[in-house]
Amino acid sequence: MIAETPAPPYYAVIFTSVRTDDDLGYAEMADRMVALAEQQPGFLGIESARNDIGITVSYWADMVSIKKWKMNIEHLEAQRLGHEKWYSSFKTRIVKVERDYGF
Amino acid sequence: MIAETPAPPYYAVIFTSVRTDDDLGYAEMADRMVALAEQQPGFLGIESARNDIGITVSYWADMVSIKKWKMNIEHLEAQRLGHEKWYSSFKTRIVKVERDYGF
Repeated sequence: MIAETPAPPYYAVIFTSVRTDDDLGYAEMADRMVALAEQQPGFLGIESARNDIGITVSYWADMVSIKKWKMNIEHLEAQRLGHEKWYSSFKTRIVKVERDYGF
Repeated sequence: MIAETPAPPYYAVIFTSVRTDDDLGYAEMADRMVALAEQQPGFLGIESARNDIGITVSYWADMVSIKKWKMNIEHLEAQRLGHEKWYSSFKTRIVKVERDYGF
């Protein structure tokens, strides 16, 4: 689903990743992190797609919300496991959405 | 491939879309647009994934490069066909990348 975000400015985290072959626990954790993110203050929406690489974009009201989400204790554990087991490489980009349009 | 972008700040276009069932000419046009984008001044890289939705993120040195790419005559025609035939909905977000990290 395309996220229904408010009028800019707002913020986003673009998480681009390449997976390892280790699937154990990955899908459950990914689902859990989406459910957990949705409960955080300032969460605006999330979009995700994967084939050769995965791209997940989460949208946030402000930078403080992004920092708090990054430091969420359960999310920190997921990040640790991701680094250790599930991702062979990734890039996280913190961005400010300045304009948007669509139909 | 994860795009190898320079140190921030730089800019990006997040294009999120839902496709119609009309595949005629779509893959060729998508490939052509990537090849054309790569030739534009200020182009830094591109990442793309699709299953339920498609997410394409293109990275650019500055806003002027993004505006010129949006107005490229061949790209305008692709946008027109996309709106008319290939996408049932889309959202384009113009963003400034403020921080990034990865491994």
